[in-house]
Amino acid sequence: MADKLIPREKGFSEWYVDLVQKAKLADYSDVKGCMVIRPNGFALWESIQRALDKMFKDTGHRNAYFPLLIPLSYLKKEAEHVEGFNPQLALVTVAGGKQLEEPYAIRPTSETIINATFAKWIQSYRDLPLLINQWCNVMRWEMRTRLFLRTTEFLWQEGHTCHETEEEAERETRQMLEIYRTFAEEHMAMPVLAGRKSESERFAGALRTYSIEAMMQDKKALQAGTSHNLGQNFAKAFNTQFLGRDGQQHYVWQTSWGVSTRLIGGLILTHSDDSGLVVPPKLAASHVVIIVIGKGEERARVVERAQALAADLRRVGLGVSVDDDESKSPGFKYFEYELQGVCLRVELGPKDLAKEQCVMVRRDTRVKEFAPLSGAVARAQALLESMQKDLFARAKQFRDEHTFEVNTYDELKARADDGFMLAHWCEKPSCEAKVKEDTSATTRCRPFALEQVPGKCVVCGEPSPGRMVVAKAY
Amino acid sequence: MADKLIPREKGFSEWYVDLVQKAKLADYSDVKGCMVIRPNGFALWESIQRALDKMFKDTGHRNAYFPLLIPLSYLKKEAEHVEGFNPQLALVTVAGGKQLEEPYAIRPTSETIINATFAKWIQSYRDLPLLINQWCNVMRWEMRTRLFLRTTEFLWQEGHTCHETEEEAERETRQMLEIYRTFAEEHMAMPVLAGRKSESERFAGALRTYSIEAMMQDKKALQAGTSHNLGQNFAKAFNTQFLGRDGQQHYVWQTSWGVSTRLIGGLILTHSDDSGLVVPPKLAASHVVIIVIGKGEERARVVERAQALAADLRRVGLGVSVDDDESKSPGFKYFEYELQGVCLRVELGPKDLAKEQCVMVRRDTRVKEFAPLSGAVARAQALLESMQKDLFARAKQFRDEHTFEVNTYDELKARADDGFMLAHWCEKPSCEAKVKEDTSATTRCRPFALEQVPGKCVVCGEPSPGRMVVAKAY
Repeated sequence: MADKLIPREKGFSEWYVDLVQKAKLADYSDVKGCMVIRPNGFALWESIQRALDKMFKDTGHRNAYFPLLIPLSYLKKEAEHVEGFNPQLALVTVAGGKQLEEPYAIRPTSETIINATFAKWIQSYRDLPLLINQWCNVMRWEMRTRLFLRTTEFLWQEGHTCHETEEEAERETRQMLEIYRTFAEEHMAMPVLAGRKSESERFAGALRTYSIEAMMQDKKALQAGTSHNLGQNFAKAFNTQFLGRDGQQHYVWQTSWGVSTRLIGGLILTHSDDSGLVVPPKLAASHVVIIVIGKGEERARVVERAQALAADLRRVGLGVSVDDDESKSPGFKYFEYELQGVCLRVELGPKDLAKEQCVMVRRDTRVKEFAPLSGAVARAQALLESMQKDLFARAKQFRDEHTFEVNTYDELKARADDGFMLAHWCEKPSCEAKVKEDTSATTRCRPFALEQVPGKCVVCGEPSPGRMVVAKAY
Repeated sequence: MADKLIPREKGFSEWYVDLVQKAKLADYSDVKGCMVIRPNGFALWESIQRALDKMFKDTGHRNAYFPLLIPLSYLKKEAEHVEGFNPQLALVTVAGGKQLEEPYAIRPTSETIINATFAKWIQSYRDLPLLINQWCNVMRWEMRTRLFLRTTEFLWQEGHTCHETEEEAERETRQMLEIYRTFAEEHMAMPVLAGRKSESERFAGALRTYSIEAMMQDKKALQAGTSHNLGQNFAKAFNTQFLGRDGQQHYVWQTSWGVSTRLIGGLILTHSDDSGLVVPPKLAASHVVIIVIGKGEERARVVERAQALAADLRRVGLGVSVDDDESKSPGFKYFEYELQGVCLRVELGPKDLAKEQCVMVRRDTRVKEFAPLSGAVARAQALLESMQKDLFARAKQFRDEHTFEVNTYDELKARADDGFMLAHWCEKPSCEAKVKEDTSATTRCRPFALEQVPGKCVVCGEPSPGRMVVAKAY
């Protein structure tokens, strides 16, 4: 029998790392803080890319590619930006056997190099809006890393857009956040709160940052995507101007927005269990595995029928494999496929065949049922659809059950591990800093869906415009 | 009127660079030797990726992702490999504000870091074959660069596989070369010669290198893809062993293979003309543009019909846009869409509508014809199919017309600019080096399709096993 996972109650972090490695999603590398994304993990990223890329294109964005290296002087053009990213830069100082006159930074994000290009592309309002996205790798030298959740190098997409007016840029910023919310909830089955970040959590160089925040099974928050209204900060730094309809030169209004391979970590921490990975069917590459049971001549007939069923299932767009390996026991296989998160297990043996039926087991509930072979495709589709919905409903219920108001600072301190605290805050950075120091919880966002009723700051008692979500976070 | 392109006869190189920039395919950046791939160019790369990725997956390969940075010590483990790549490395020496103890190289190719990982993944013959591919960016510090064709950073895919036997590795190496050949000829409409490279052109660290070689319109060769049989060189350097069926430890047999954004340069140099880009329909994102002609009320009816036709064309899977912009003349638009390489132009005006017809103009031949609106979709499909075939046939005819035998060294020197020379060569590096020095032509490959008849080396008169292709190359 293969190694069982460390159960969640023995240590949530240990369970996570054990799962990522045993399900062959990712592995540590010898490069500090960098991971290897294994085929099982990369298939998840490909599903994420496929779905998001379509949503980006459907809203008029086009993909492009900008250089990996950024002249250090570019990063310095926007003061807040360089201050934010400087400590995390990896610098190329030697190339082609020579010391470089000016070092290059490996992009931690591409606002600067992209603005240097946009400034050349944009002449007049006819060139706007400019709606660009890039899928690429970025690098931020992190002290503490964790597979998928925080790595020195990660894969992401970064959208960069330019607009004529501030309103249009704000609309775009919010539209992209809404796309992230839709993707997280409808594809990843991961409920999120969309809202505005505090000043201290704002992207370095932005006017305003919005995020979607999910709750993991350990009740900690995961920032799963961000969308920034950059205002004219980078436009001014790089002189990105356009001739307006009024015949005057204006700086463009910009946005940027991104999600990364961190989403895979979020996926795992939201749905998986002590048996291994659980993947919402919409993102799964492996929907069904058919396990052949039986021996000898009987087995040959089962294999034939299993292949026919697989073909039928593939015809409706499902990812299907047939496991006919006689060298491993069914029990061993169940264990392996549960670990790897195949959504639906179909067991087919001679006895089933005699009754013209098969066994179906959903990965999430592990409920076993018999299905007539004649209706197996429809039943599989129905089970997968239910699984998608149930995963979301269960995660949402969990999140809602662990979201609560706190009205005193003592209460906040006592309940910092219990989930999303809805707390009044006066918006002073000092109160936010005190909470962080005392509890290590941080402001996550001011959710759009949370009605804002004035009150008193839970820290200092000064007036507050409404409650924020405060929680410990990844 | 917009700027015309520099015609090819005025300077083939100048035409190329002018086209790449005016068709908005790519742009220079401020980072030495690195380009920005603009949306029009990136759409071509997306088409290339989509087609190749399917071919890789259909042959059992899975995608993964390995770190961008490679410890310098890894590169040094395979002596020939580091010697080959050392002069082109970009080195990260400072990260997170600190000098690194050991510098990292930005990957020029990933054999070393991937082998360090494979060594951990592979235990026994049951783990083989291991068939992995990676789509990523790589960096080789080049002295002279040219958009798409040779850039310091480029995008590519690199396949890396491990096998039990030498025969299996050789079969894989040749299979992937054959996939490249099929892709080049059937999708890119770019005829290629598949064959083996000479020792001096072998990949640093490989046993044998194979390539596909295409002929550009200026009769120069372009190496469009390579596939390497790595033997056990990297396996020995990284101790990548497996427990064999015989109960003994063995080193794995490996391959690697890649194509890059250079293919986009090859596409341009094969098919494009003085009016701009020409794209084979199978790779085009924009198959049809419908240009609305006419004024006032009449125009409104034309727009409506154009939109209906566009919807019909999209239904059969074509990329279609309708240009209804009244601020630009039809002539200006024709010029622009030819420049950008839209495969088929459809003109629709009130007079056409009265006759229930439209005008269709193929981008490559620029032949104009009238097509009844009722059969417009079928006609567009037929024209695009012909275009795909004709582009290939024309390029093949051009290549064949400029492929010829040379039998004396004087002849070789005199005709080095005329295309692919088929020349006897004794396989001594000194004769190859002399040809390169005297003419700047190099051995391209020994094509599988070229019958090998012994003869005498065109340089030294010693015995030759058969003719090689010798040509100037990009």
